[in-house]
Amino acid sequence: MRGVVMYSAGDVRVEERPDPRIIEPTDAIIRLTATCVCGSDLWPYRGVEPADHQVMGHEYVGVVEEVGAEVKTVAPGDFVVGSFVISDNTCEICRAGFQSKCVHAEFVAQTIGTQAEKARIPYADGTLVKTPGEPDPAMIPDLLAASDVLGTGWFAAVAAQAGPGKTVAVVGDGAVGLMAILAAKQLGAERIIAMSRHPRRQELARHYGATDIVTERGDAGVAKIRELTGGLGAHSVVEAVGTQESFMQAVGATRGGGHLGYVGVNYDVQIPGIELFFAGIHTLGGPAPVRRFLPDLIALIWDRKIDPGKVFDLTLPLEAAAEGYRAMDERRATKVLLTL
Amino acid sequence: MRGVVMYSAGDVRVEERPDPRIIEPTDAIIRLTATCVCGSDLWPYRGVEPADHQVMGHEYVGVVEEVGAEVKTVAPGDFVVGSFVISDNTCEICRAGFQSKCVHAEFVAQTIGTQAEKARIPYADGTLVKTPGEPDPAMIPDLLAASDVLGTGWFAAVAAQAGPGKTVAVVGDGAVGLMAILAAKQLGAERIIAMSRHPRRQELARHYGATDIVTERGDAGVAKIRELTGGLGAHSVVEAVGTQESFMQAVGATRGGGHLGYVGVNYDVQIPGIELFFAGIHTLGGPAPVRRFLPDLIALIWDRKIDPGKVFDLTLPLEAAAEGYRAMDERRATKVLLTL
Repeated sequence: MRGVVMYSAGDVRVEERPDPRIIEPTDAIIRLTATCVCGSDLWPYRGVEPADHQVMGHEYVGVVEEVGAEVKTVAPGDFVVGSFVISDNTCEICRAGFQSKCVHAEFVAQTIGTQAEKARIPYADGTLVKTPGEPDPAMIPDLLAASDVLGTGWFAAVAAQAGPGKTVAVVGDGAVGLMAILAAKQLGAERIIAMSRHPRRQELARHYGATDIVTERGDAGVAKIRELTGGLGAHSVVEAVGTQESFMQAVGATRGGGHLGYVGVNYDVQIPGIELFFAGIHTLGGPAPVRRFLPDLIALIWDRKIDPGKVFDLTLPLEAAAEGYRAMDERRATKVLLTL
Repeated sequence: MRGVVMYSAGDVRVEERPDPRIIEPTDAIIRLTATCVCGSDLWPYRGVEPADHQVMGHEYVGVVEEVGAEVKTVAPGDFVVGSFVISDNTCEICRAGFQSKCVHAEFVAQTIGTQAEKARIPYADGTLVKTPGEPDPAMIPDLLAASDVLGTGWFAAVAAQAGPGKTVAVVGDGAVGLMAILAAKQLGAERIIAMSRHPRRQELARHYGATDIVTERGDAGVAKIRELTGGLGAHSVVEAVGTQESFMQAVGATRGGGHLGYVGVNYDVQIPGIELFFAGIHTLGGPAPVRRFLPDLIALIWDRKIDPGKVFDLTLPLEAAAEGYRAMDERRATKVLLTL
């Protein structure tokens, strides 16, 4: 089959890779309908993380081709959406809703690589969720978004306890930040402040439910959030950038007793303990347990109540993956969908 | 009146200080019955924080002598317990239960200094809670503990979501750690693991409800907690030391999706963002909103359901405050009560 391999930083190739086969009785083989390039794929692309002939990709939707003997909830022919972390969905951690910390957790990005025609998905019952039927092709981008970027933004908004009566501030206007805005709106937040300087992303932020746009960053951004919230700070803050500055901006924007949800942190971020302490806030972060939310997200998409697929602003065939990486690296695209 | 002043690190004196007077109509003047020395008082004592003729003390119980014209809930003659942070208890932050982040918050330690015969307490209605009557003298240490160390340990246990069915690990066997154990027990925790190497404190930990004692620290401590919890980590972890090692030990001991409550952090602690991220845990910390818990804590003490006063293992008259500081600095005492 054809699949993406990153030979080294900046060197993305599409080449022949071995077809995946069932190994464990809990595996499924899926044929991908679409996949995409994630902001986190840019880390090895830019040399921030090592890459040495690394298979790439962790977002995926597709059709089940074959299942192992113990797989019960999906069958050949089913259209499925899966999480970017493998989970059994039965262990104590999964049952508590933290499937990305499952005792059998495995990062799809590291070992499977779904920027490819096919993929072997371990713990298929615990990782994949089938759609109610064959989706309309126009719905594919929406379903693909659920696999990571929507699920991650949704988790961030839940972690920040976005909800009725709450003012939510979202630091970051990338795809995850935009999805957190969509989620905050769906969760009933009263006011949603997008921190963004990018005109097209501001427009999308408003489309997804932002009521206010703040262009200031750092201390000035914090001051602006405080000004907009009677000096108190936001009840709920989503951190969707992951730099030192953005993380501390998010801490500063959260009111005492408020909730900060964060869904990505660069390797060099160091949080001063004393600042976090005196902020007096709740935090929850980590790789999002997308599997917890997938059934609800698929239902919202199926009923056309949300349109997360709009975050894809460039669509290319898998064979042009290298151009997709370039476009995202050069910020010509927010998020690139790869068709198969 | 007589009161403690720290001239400089290590130089604690009891001397004449001006009697406090009502300044604002929301003030009360209290005559202290007892006060104490806090672990945090050792920071300036040891030169970790600056001290230049600093008034000291932030824990207090006593009798109201005089109130301002607007004070409604306490009156002269009432026996009261107060929080170590002044709060109006009416602002939006207070109503959400985070009185230590009140819009009128003021640290008693910094400006008032309750290691003294009397103290002016601003926002008396929002800061003080009266007891149901004149307490039995034997109950004074229990009530005094509620002012900070019990309230702080209780908050830590609540922040860690200690409760029925939960395994709680407490990092630190100082007074706050011991109070967190008491709180976890009261909150219904199933299993309480005290991390302690000190025989007398282990004994008190067991008295307050610890079911297991772990003597290992750092990575070995984390490994031991994992071993005791089926590899998963504790549901709830209290961090009650505040060093880099203890904080990361607490992070490591918390299961994915679990809750870490922390109630003190040294100035040099730097939390690696990526470690916190991949831990996938909830955190809540800060100066404890003791005022939230005071009514319940006083009721538990009044009804003799808890005996937090046992954490005081040395009682001295106020005039001997310097010896009290020395005893705590040299670890001859866990916590020193000063009588008046």
